[in-house]
Amino acid sequence: MAKDFPTREENYSQWYNDLVIKADLAEGSAVRGCMVIKPYGYSIWEKMQAALDGMFKDTGHQNAYFPIFIPKSFFNKEASHVDGFAKECAVVTHYRLKNSPDGKGIEVDEDAKLDEELIVRPTSETIIWATYKKWIQSYRDLPILVNQWANVVRWEMRTRLFLRTTEFLWQEGHTAHATKEEAIRETEQMLNIYAEFAENWMAIPVLKGTKSPNERFAGAIETYCIEALMQDGKALQAGTSHFLGQNFAKAFDVKFLSKENKLEYVWATSWGVSTRLMGALVMAHSDDQGLVLPPKLAPIQVAIVPIYRKEEQLDQITEKVKPIIEALRKRGIRVKFDDRDTYKPGWKFSEYEFKGVPIRLAIGPRDLENNTIEIARRDTLEKEVLQITDIDVKIENLLIQIQDNLYQKALSFRENNTCKVDTWDEFKKAVEKGGFILAHWDGTAETEQKIKDETKATIRAIPLNEYFEEGNCILTGKPSKQRVYFAKAY
Amino acid sequence: MAKDFPTREENYSQWYNDLVIKADLAEGSAVRGCMVIKPYGYSIWEKMQAALDGMFKDTGHQNAYFPIFIPKSFFNKEASHVDGFAKECAVVTHYRLKNSPDGKGIEVDEDAKLDEELIVRPTSETIIWATYKKWIQSYRDLPILVNQWANVVRWEMRTRLFLRTTEFLWQEGHTAHATKEEAIRETEQMLNIYAEFAENWMAIPVLKGTKSPNERFAGAIETYCIEALMQDGKALQAGTSHFLGQNFAKAFDVKFLSKENKLEYVWATSWGVSTRLMGALVMAHSDDQGLVLPPKLAPIQVAIVPIYRKEEQLDQITEKVKPIIEALRKRGIRVKFDDRDTYKPGWKFSEYEFKGVPIRLAIGPRDLENNTIEIARRDTLEKEVLQITDIDVKIENLLIQIQDNLYQKALSFRENNTCKVDTWDEFKKAVEKGGFILAHWDGTAETEQKIKDETKATIRAIPLNEYFEEGNCILTGKPSKQRVYFAKAY
Repeated sequence: MAKDFPTREENYSQWYNDLVIKADLAEGSAVRGCMVIKPYGYSIWEKMQAALDGMFKDTGHQNAYFPIFIPKSFFNKEASHVDGFAKECAVVTHYRLKNSPDGKGIEVDEDAKLDEELIVRPTSETIIWATYKKWIQSYRDLPILVNQWANVVRWEMRTRLFLRTTEFLWQEGHTAHATKEEAIRETEQMLNIYAEFAENWMAIPVLKGTKSPNERFAGAIETYCIEALMQDGKALQAGTSHFLGQNFAKAFDVKFLSKENKLEYVWATSWGVSTRLMGALVMAHSDDQGLVLPPKLAPIQVAIVPIYRKEEQLDQITEKVKPIIEALRKRGIRVKFDDRDTYKPGWKFSEYEFKGVPIRLAIGPRDLENNTIEIARRDTLEKEVLQITDIDVKIENLLIQIQDNLYQKALSFRENNTCKVDTWDEFKKAVEKGGFILAHWDGTAETEQKIKDETKATIRAIPLNEYFEEGNCILTGKPSKQRVYFAKAY
Repeated sequence: MAKDFPTREENYSQWYNDLVIKADLAEGSAVRGCMVIKPYGYSIWEKMQAALDGMFKDTGHQNAYFPIFIPKSFFNKEASHVDGFAKECAVVTHYRLKNSPDGKGIEVDEDAKLDEELIVRPTSETIIWATYKKWIQSYRDLPILVNQWANVVRWEMRTRLFLRTTEFLWQEGHTAHATKEEAIRETEQMLNIYAEFAENWMAIPVLKGTKSPNERFAGAIETYCIEALMQDGKALQAGTSHFLGQNFAKAFDVKFLSKENKLEYVWATSWGVSTRLMGALVMAHSDDQGLVLPPKLAPIQVAIVPIYRKEEQLDQITEKVKPIIEALRKRGIRVKFDDRDTYKPGWKFSEYEFKGVPIRLAIGPRDLENNTIEIARRDTLEKEVLQITDIDVKIENLLIQIQDNLYQKALSFRENNTCKVDTWDEFKKAVEKGGFILAHWDGTAETEQKIKDETKATIRAIPLNEYFEEGNCILTGKPSKQRVYFAKAY
């Protein structure tokens, strides 16, 4: 199988797009900006979902489901939310089609116009807080710790598979609390869960921080984020957790009777990650040979390819391999024994390499004689011939090693691509080079905007409790007390 | 907690609606016909999803995701599909909102009108077959065994929570095959999986059969279905599996090169179940005291309520109960120890009864002395005091017994409410009484329609390989070779 696509060096953007399509992760559809997530890609997403869902439930959250449509008027209720969200949206105006008079097609039935237009949710704060109003009367009803797995639609002008699509899949947590402190704790807890997931499951190191007001979620008091560095030196926002204060409670009039018998507005958070994580996963680890998947999220962790000429040899190999497969499955390892006779071993090797399968085993007649098996690592592309004895233990350990190696590699990359600069000239050069830049900023939205206009770099994160030091803004020279992370971003 | 709602006898329909809302399964929303699925209800749905998803994967299916929007023109392509599906749909006509000139609100931006309207998917055959065209060239690409978990929208005029809502959640399988025989086998396999799920997990016996042309899926050659009987004597279609022939392949021009090197149209199936199953679950088992849930789908299988006056007694009970909880969890049993001090034991008892928790344990100071525990079954409302020794084994067995008892009870109910009739008078009386009616039918759509107009009963299923016998149509007296199942239906 010839996988004809450019290297990262030649054309990073094309490399990414080709890889996503040719490795069967996703593809475009007949609907502008909407993607089809193919079975191989969806299987990775399912593993992400399962891991995150477990972490949410372990911290007391429950899933629920809210309507996909939001009445237009709901967006008006929270003043800053409307500007941020109610613009580029899919609008439902009618609820019926009818046969065309010429009998050749169907057309919108103008008699079936909605009194109030419905917006396909771009995010669900408004419809959920309209619901919470019914659920919350007393402090006994709090906290509400609810998450929803859903599709959302934002009408993006320029789309890229996984990174920015008109429709995407995500989870959105929406919690309600009696006190400000508890809500902030929740916001921070979820940020930490996202960081843990990115690092332990996706093998991607992330920076944690807060957003500048410019980049804050529309309706939030504070937006926390995790930011990852891609191989082209651009940052990718991988997850956000918002402290919403009492903004939505006030917009939807949600009050509770406190223990002290006082009527108070409820405190809120929301937090989400999306299929964008799939894009981050591909861009963080993959190489010019194809996908590289961390073992914990790989649909197939171990592929076994038999090498044989005669049917009889295949039978012998199958016999030999059976207990290995069983032993691996007992350890919870996802194995595929690829005995298809429609493809040659070489084709299969390059297929599994391209699809990012962490470990590929090959076994032929000589291995049968020697009780050996060839093992190939996707991350380093190294091969080794091993004794079959205890092969399940060796493979289990190797999977752990590969997971760790991918993380360490990504971490080194980020460390090698993070710098501190103190002058505007250095800053411009550093932006050119790519990576994270720790620099002083005078704290104003105007300066941030000017920096963006001149360099395309934005503030990705204001570090949490780090890099406090006296300095001067790289652009204006005004005094600053903390360095912040700048980068060009997806 | 007073759960004020009518008995089944008094008002079945109101009983159902109140139960769904008050037991925290679902409720209406600000959007007409769209429901909010609350955490307790969603937790049951998640268990249904997990069980079904496992069965799908065990039979070789994979999940994927297709766009929520379908271009209007796609519905025109399959002639019978358009009449069945493209009418009562949510239509997206615009992709942007803007601030109103008066600055007080937002309105649809008329400059952002779509060239072609988008339909929110009522079902996905069209968009999926437009995609399969890209995936299928050769017999090697077949079969495609794909399933999607998604939300769909059908603009229903009269809605009822779970049973008929504008938006609902479902899974839709869409498979592509090289031969007719293989596609029919798949259709039948999925019907059997649905029946197995209904009986083994939901504890609801179902009839299997095919639909008459009147009730067939728009675009199908044959529709298979499972039908369940509710306590008010009405039938509920719980799942369908469609053999689509080559209809969609022809509509979307999907051909493959066969092993014999001939270009042929692909054969298709589709099959689905939805959140409607939640309605079936409630209506099949619940009683005038509230929900009754089969253990396999109950979010909480065992609730433990401590009975105490002094803090010290609670401590002793907690100590005693700890190893029981551990032992139950080890057996995979979902236990909740409810030591909240904000509610009295009596309140908790009625809460768990109302929420359908299969087993409730109560333990007080006297039990501590006697090493006993009180156990209450939700299905029979029986109580018993048991020795704590081996309580985990006893509970595990009891859960199996309860699951089985619910099924047997529902089966007896169906058997007692299924009759054979041979005359029109008998038929009308039987319809009045409710339940399934096995009767002869002359096989014409006209007769079926007349029977429906006069009695509201429809053909629920044409049995598979059963009830073949000579007879005369109950309405027209014309000859018939097989009895079919009639009933009034949801």
